[in-house]
Amino acid sequence: MNDTYAGRTITRDGQLLLEKAEKDRVETVWDRFENQLPQCGYCEMGLSCRICVMGPCRIDPFGEGPQKGVCGADADIIVARNLCRMIAAGAASHSDHGRDLIEVLDEVAKGKAAGYRIRDAEKLKRVASEYGISSDGKDDLKIAEQLAYAMQEDFGTRKKALTLLRRAPAKRRQVWDKLGIAPRGIDRETAEMMHRTHMGVDNNWQSLLLQALRNALSDGWGGSMIATELSDILFGTPKPATTAVNVGVLKKDQVNIIVHGHNPVVSEMVLLACRSEDLLQLAASKGAAGINLAGVCCTGNELLMRSGVAMAGNHLTTELVLTTGAVDMMIVDYQCIMPSLGTVAACYHTRMVSTSDKARFPGMEHREFHPDNAAEEARALVKEAIENFTNRGEVYIPVEPVNAVGGFSVETILGALGGTPQPLIDALKSGTIRGAVGIVGCNNPRIRQDFGHVTLAKRLIENDILVVDTGCAAVATAKAGFKASDAAQMAGPGLRGICSALGIPPVLHMGSCVDNVRILVLASALANALGTDISDLPIAGAAPEWYSEKAVAIGAYFVASGVYTVLGPMPPVTGSMNVVKLLTEGLQDVVGATFSVEPDPEKAALAIRRHIEEKRRGLGLPAQKV
Amino acid sequence: MNDTYAGRTITRDGQLLLEKAEKDRVETVWDRFENQLPQCGYCEMGLSCRICVMGPCRIDPFGEGPQKGVCGADADIIVARNLCRMIAAGAASHSDHGRDLIEVLDEVAKGKAAGYRIRDAEKLKRVASEYGISSDGKDDLKIAEQLAYAMQEDFGTRKKALTLLRRAPAKRRQVWDKLGIAPRGIDRETAEMMHRTHMGVDNNWQSLLLQALRNALSDGWGGSMIATELSDILFGTPKPATTAVNVGVLKKDQVNIIVHGHNPVVSEMVLLACRSEDLLQLAASKGAAGINLAGVCCTGNELLMRSGVAMAGNHLTTELVLTTGAVDMMIVDYQCIMPSLGTVAACYHTRMVSTSDKARFPGMEHREFHPDNAAEEARALVKEAIENFTNRGEVYIPVEPVNAVGGFSVETILGALGGTPQPLIDALKSGTIRGAVGIVGCNNPRIRQDFGHVTLAKRLIENDILVVDTGCAAVATAKAGFKASDAAQMAGPGLRGICSALGIPPVLHMGSCVDNVRILVLASALANALGTDISDLPIAGAAPEWYSEKAVAIGAYFVASGVYTVLGPMPPVTGSMNVVKLLTEGLQDVVGATFSVEPDPEKAALAIRRHIEEKRRGLGLPAQKV
Repeated sequence: MNDTYAGRTITRDGQLLLEKAEKDRVETVWDRFENQLPQCGYCEMGLSCRICVMGPCRIDPFGEGPQKGVCGADADIIVARNLCRMIAAGAASHSDHGRDLIEVLDEVAKGKAAGYRIRDAEKLKRVASEYGISSDGKDDLKIAEQLAYAMQEDFGTRKKALTLLRRAPAKRRQVWDKLGIAPRGIDRETAEMMHRTHMGVDNNWQSLLLQALRNALSDGWGGSMIATELSDILFGTPKPATTAVNVGVLKKDQVNIIVHGHNPVVSEMVLLACRSEDLLQLAASKGAAGINLAGVCCTGNELLMRSGVAMAGNHLTTELVLTTGAVDMMIVDYQCIMPSLGTVAACYHTRMVSTSDKARFPGMEHREFHPDNAAEEARALVKEAIENFTNRGEVYIPVEPVNAVGGFSVETILGALGGTPQPLIDALKSGTIRGAVGIVGCNNPRIRQDFGHVTLAKRLIENDILVVDTGCAAVATAKAGFKASDAAQMAGPGLRGICSALGIPPVLHMGSCVDNVRILVLASALANALGTDISDLPIAGAAPEWYSEKAVAIGAYFVASGVYTVLGPMPPVTGSMNVVKLLTEGLQDVVGATFSVEPDPEKAALAIRRHIEEKRRGLGLPAQKV
Repeated sequence: MNDTYAGRTITRDGQLLLEKAEKDRVETVWDRFENQLPQCGYCEMGLSCRICVMGPCRIDPFGEGPQKGVCGADADIIVARNLCRMIAAGAASHSDHGRDLIEVLDEVAKGKAAGYRIRDAEKLKRVASEYGISSDGKDDLKIAEQLAYAMQEDFGTRKKALTLLRRAPAKRRQVWDKLGIAPRGIDRETAEMMHRTHMGVDNNWQSLLLQALRNALSDGWGGSMIATELSDILFGTPKPATTAVNVGVLKKDQVNIIVHGHNPVVSEMVLLACRSEDLLQLAASKGAAGINLAGVCCTGNELLMRSGVAMAGNHLTTELVLTTGAVDMMIVDYQCIMPSLGTVAACYHTRMVSTSDKARFPGMEHREFHPDNAAEEARALVKEAIENFTNRGEVYIPVEPVNAVGGFSVETILGALGGTPQPLIDALKSGTIRGAVGIVGCNNPRIRQDFGHVTLAKRLIENDILVVDTGCAAVATAKAGFKASDAAQMAGPGLRGICSALGIPPVLHMGSCVDNVRILVLASALANALGTDISDLPIAGAAPEWYSEKAVAIGAYFVASGVYTVLGPMPPVTGSMNVVKLLTEGLQDVVGATFSVEPDPEKAALAIRRHIEEKRRGLGLPAQKV
């Protein structure tokens, strides 16, 4: 194997498909990354400002050139504003996704969304009651209508605090109230963040960053949380199910359809269509042994979690999967969909279809899905995918898939523990499990694909730290076998014993990237059971290979919720030592948690282990020297 | 006079104070602009992308280096996304300002805002009725409460279209509906814009730019329009009043307080305090002949429009006014407040005070104003300003002020015409007036201060084109004497006759930059009276010296509303000829209007005159060759 490929990804399917891509003269994200080197140092450090056209301005990091922009903003202000806008974009993205689910719920309630229905009525009632909506004497659709209305109010501007903040431990809410960063309205915090970063508004880097935390919290305890809860209500709360992972999930003799993006609203309808008898017969009539639906990225995770749908790969695999020549159709919704995909697909027979009114792409056909036509459109697309099966050229599926168990919602985890977090708390108290870590986030071509996720997860479970993961991180560890039914053997003795007893792997797949809120809910359950704050728990977060603005928002709401979080790639903040120090040290006194940046996952594992032992010490639990 | 100063500003006060600043070793915005040269070409062309940390990426405009970012985005996508985010920030800023006024109205209604009251109850009832709120049998406070509630719904996410879109001509609304760009919720459009510009969401430069128009419309017919209407209701609808303009409005023998920013909520309370008897007596006891309140920037325009408060200068004068040594206190709220001001003030005795919870600045004391404490806080600050009067050093007020008439709300203009736009329409039809132009926007150190505004206004009125202006443009033309009571003589014969008959200047001050919506309302009144669309009218917009993201949003809502708009400085779009062509040509077929970019105001005047004559021809009115 070419050393270049091995340097780009640790995955066997990735390496082999990089070779195939080169043979087929397909340009990949790694090629474009290398073409962009060296990247602009001002932008990398956050020192470039183009917020107004008196600029663009640059601050000289060596202190010899300009130290202020035209308006007078210095490095601290410029770096802080740029970071704030990343968080605003990330929070807006997740929250707009949440809004779309409210609209589906509302249309279901009004009988306008054929194909969709309430699949978890119990959860509907539970969430409705959190919004003060009684279920007495009401049918599910009435409750759904009232819940949709109430949730829309969280996106409005009249409230003083978001409804689901009440899920956070009381001590955490006091922290937010004292700082004045309890989010009021979901969109409002994004709009205020954009306002404050306009020229001549907030020019204090501390108060800017506080609003950024509020904006991030409006995502974590608002938009994303609504997205997850409504996805469960509409498509079912995840339960453990076995699935298969990596490019080997594609099937040579079946129609292969890949769904890509983040919102399950489209892909759930595609899944229904793939299972319909008449379309299966049509596929058979074309010589296909079946219709094989697989996912990539977080739309894939949504289907994996709820229906055990196979997962072809994470962010950096989304181009490579097309080079198999085996994908008859890729259907995309939104977020993290590289605009290069249409170009890659054009080298093969693959049909590319975009579905969201908010997201079109070069080289893709646009077929707009709305709740009222989605079931029908999905059937039409699956039919067309079947018809495309006979157009295939050479097919190259070079690996066998890996088995994995997914579906660990909070409900599932607590269920496995007997309905209460007490067994987990007992294990933490005794030290059988030292702590728990959420590994989240993306791939990024500046990190060898999956190396960060897999190395970190390996070191943590070896040391009896339970790992929960989401998004591309969850796919990475699944590909590495950490979610296989026999994966408990990879864990240290304490964790191994518990996982074996419960029949769960040591790395629990908690869902897509909006599902990071499940981690907040789980952490709150632990903190509440212990009568303490999230920031006191022996837990941490990590995003070893993050790339997106959504990941910055997630990191910020983790930290603002009290979770120490280690980033792999450096965010564009090194131009301001004040901002760096606040994020990595100063926030400790503000929200009881900080960011770290550590691209080496071995070192990140050590930092996290030390943090966990320190938190154990703080709680009076037996602690080790790391 | 030093040639450098004359090259920086056409204003006499500006030139003299630049000399003073140099003598005092005060760094100004022009110095910092020169220090930043050459500015980054990638950023200037919109070709730099830092939306994710696979980047930062740059597209080589010469075609030799990379043509795609790491994700695969090309120049068109990158340029469009960057422009979209400028519009999102601009729209968010205006709209957040509008939200703040709703909160004041709501607190007034609830009796929690001492000092504030309903000053235009007639307008309250009129606007309430547009929101479907009957005034029958209700007192003003009840109506105010219901209006605040209804307006908050425009910021929410439940609506299909903003309420005040109904003010637009029917044909214009059809254009928006057909394109799918009628804004739904004010914050929602900003959030969706931020979402769509996240990596892997909207990668079609046309659909991105359409959403940007929707976002801008959510400002023009939403956030800004609410801001203007509520400011009128709370502080009075402007009526013509004579005032004085330029740095000469400062008074050597009086306590000078300058208010700066955009939102009248704070400055109106300061004005009240400045007029209170006990504080005037306190000033007298300190040897001051009075308390002289003056404004800069748009907070200044708000007070000028409603109370004839003097105006010391526009954007590029905000630092220079401090070099007079005559400012005892500057009180700022938000937007366009250079973070350099604290540093400049530190060279003099001037006290700098920030007042908004959203906006802090280096070198300023923070005294937070809220509706419930504003009246009291304002009194405390004015008292402190008085006490600072005796700390003055040398004072240099080198010019005499110019007289100007302001206060031209739509209500005033229609009132002057006898309650209907018919006399104006008759004058347009006959050709006595060829058309009307809104000159708006800021100053920008890349344009000689006021040169663009003044030259353009001069050429237009000379050619019988009525000028309405707002913001820094309105201050520029006032300084140049175009709003003086005898200014009609500067106009061409047709316009001169009408202005003389009505007793109005040929350049009408319509307010602050959020008040650009008054121009939309006036244009709608003309279009409705003619039974046509705004895009058919012989009118245009111009922003000869714009600098801010708010200005981009304003330009976009003007064009999306059908108003041909000429920009002075080039927006950062030249990296994509597709985007440039769409903005300057393609939008004609989409919304019936386009942008032009023309830094030379003489050429801009010609382009506008040609446009106006073409529109006259289109309406079958007598037209000239320009």
